Amino acid sequence: MRVGVLGGGQLGRMLGIAGVPMGLQFRFLDPSPAPPAAAVGECVCAAYDDEQGLQRFLEGIEVATYEFENVPASAAKYLEGHVPVFPGWNALEVAQDRLHEKRLFEKLGIPCPNYCAVETLDDLKSALTSVAPPCILKTRRHGYDGKGQHRIERIEEAEEAWLAIGEREAIVESLVEFDWECSVLCVRSKDGTSKTYPIVQNYHRGGILRTSHCPPAVAVPPDLEATAVAYASRIAHDLEYVGVLALEMFSVGGRLLANELAPRVHNSGHWTIEGAECSQFENHLRAVLGWPLGSTEVRGYSAMVNLIGQEVDPCSVLSLGAHYHWYGKEVRPGRKVGHVTVVEASAEARDKKVSSLQERIAQHA
Amino acid sequence: MRVGVLGGGQLGRMLGIAGVPMGLQFRFLDPSPAPPAAAVGECVCAAYDDEQGLQRFLEGIEVATYEFENVPASAAKYLEGHVPVFPGWNALEVAQDRLHEKRLFEKLGIPCPNYCAVETLDDLKSALTSVAPPCILKTRRHGYDGKGQHRIERIEEAEEAWLAIGEREAIVESLVEFDWECSVLCVRSKDGTSKTYPIVQNYHRGGILRTSHCPPAVAVPPDLEATAVAYASRIAHDLEYVGVLALEMFSVGGRLLANELAPRVHNSGHWTIEGAECSQFENHLRAVLGWPLGSTEVRGYSAMVNLIGQEVDPCSVLSLGAHYHWYGKEVRPGRKVGHVTVVEASAEARDKKVSSLQERIAQHA
Repeated sequence: MRVGVLGGGQLGRMLGIAGVPMGLQFRFLDPSPAPPAAAVGECVCAAYDDEQGLQRFLEGIEVATYEFENVPASAAKYLEGHVPVFPGWNALEVAQDRLHEKRLFEKLGIPCPNYCAVETLDDLKSALTSVAPPCILKTRRHGYDGKGQHRIERIEEAEEAWLAIGEREAIVESLVEFDWECSVLCVRSKDGTSKTYPIVQNYHRGGILRTSHCPPAVAVPPDLEATAVAYASRIAHDLEYVGVLALEMFSVGGRLLANELAPRVHNSGHWTIEGAECSQFENHLRAVLGWPLGSTEVRGYSAMVNLIGQEVDPCSVLSLGAHYHWYGKEVRPGRKVGHVTVVEASAEARDKKVSSLQERIAQHA
Repeated sequence: MRVGVLGGGQLGRMLGIAGVPMGLQFRFLDPSPAPPAAAVGECVCAAYDDEQGLQRFLEGIEVATYEFENVPASAAKYLEGHVPVFPGWNALEVAQDRLHEKRLFEKLGIPCPNYCAVETLDDLKSALTSVAPPCILKTRRHGYDGKGQHRIERIEEAEEAWLAIGEREAIVESLVEFDWECSVLCVRSKDGTSKTYPIVQNYHRGGILRTSHCPPAVAVPPDLEATAVAYASRIAHDLEYVGVLALEMFSVGGRLLANELAPRVHNSGHWTIEGAECSQFENHLRAVLGWPLGSTEVRGYSAMVNLIGQEVDPCSVLSLGAHYHWYGKEVRPGRKVGHVTVVEASAEARDKKVSSLQERIAQHA
């Protein structure tokens, strides 16, 4: 059985690594000639909107999925005319546009930061009276890893921010002084059953995820975790979603505010490879294939540390008893090139090992 | 870093599945054009003794290893002239020849069944006076999964057996009325440190491994396990072995008799993928690369059931909460085409799940 994946980055690679053991074959569509996923499947090198490329991609695949949400509508629609595509276009449409995303949160009663949609510099200027600085101007579309965002400290910075994001349709959003960041990963199958992994604590710097902890290092009230899980499940069910979905949230004074939705496997779930009974990657594949979902129960205390823009000696990671992942990408500043996962029997042991790991990574930088 | 693997069967495939996450690249040499390992690396399609094939195989690899021990000496020697090759030729030489293997066991004080080397039919006839039937005639070389073996019940069957194995150099060995069969997997690194996985109980039928249990379903006296582990380690150290080695043994009246040595990752260690901290495949790679060995500690109670000559519906396996492995091979009678692993928190839960699994497999046959 052959699965088609739009995008051949590390998420596609890890989908392949999860699927090959079960006898699945993979074909990836990616604009670059030798993407990370090439290690585990065929690659069609083409732009996402290249119809000839899409035709080659479709040959002999039973189902298509995404590892990347910024797929053009035309490509998704074209594919849907030929094979089952999960998650469906409706989920991508929401996730591709921050305004649609916010409206979905509102419709489902999921609180999110105060925001205002802006289409012009004048819109932005007037929005800054209701969404007071400090705030962030974010393009509605095509933003990831902190790209397409500009922070506004004072009303006078409106024009600078507007130019910085390329004068595009945007939202301006209150800067949330959060206590900590979290995410929940939900997997939903075609028959509507869903499972969630426990809440994950995330730490971003410079708009890029640095670490994830599951269970969190902070104390999490049980009702807060239940709320987080309920929000992610509510979205999955409303969208009749099939596959893994990630909801990123801020925790502020014991309350959760939804930040972002990712209609795909997610960096904050990489720890599930070793830290859960069934990884997010295997569960995503099971969902899109209509196979029974795997257990989302965790094994011990996990943490994931991203390797960003730097190599690390595998021996220094492995000798710690940590799990080393390298995506086979060229190292460039700010680029996610690998990650390391620690799974221990206690939070203390985990946190100690994460400190040692971070020292070793810093030494190598 | 690129690793070369001689052989592209399921063992090569699982080495690749273990190595790709760590950023390793693979090249396999295999005489068949699309072997199972092709899913996780480049394949050079050539005979093992084809020097041009070996040259293409060598291009840009840092280290070579085997997933298959019946590699011609000429190929191994040729490779050793160009890259580090682990395990070394000495280990293959021993494992390729049942007589050399027996002599190694004897040298190291490891008991094995009563046997006699035979080169002619006359040798065989006279051997049957000391190694009385029931016994087994086994070719010294090129036997696997019960091939090249013939059982002798009565002295009069000597000629029939001799013809059946192709009149080749052989050993005749007492049939051991064992209580149960077991194996120990040992991994040894270049610096001489070694680790062993706990003793595994194996069940063969028709010369083919059917199931492995770790810990065993039978009660194992601690000194018997210690002896088994000591035997495997003794062999690894004597051979200055680098990589994973499997020693198969018979347990007879509380005593162990060595049966066979495999200088490679082994079917009786497939459960380590989910059932041990670090799998035999990852540990083999770590050893041959000179990386620190991973923990051989087990997670719970594991069992592995081979899928032989038949498919099974993945959903029926996954819905049990078992781990489904499919090698992407064409199904043929007697062929190992996949396996299923069960890992549970107790022996009872494991054994119950194995029974359900076997029923489902039988239903599909």
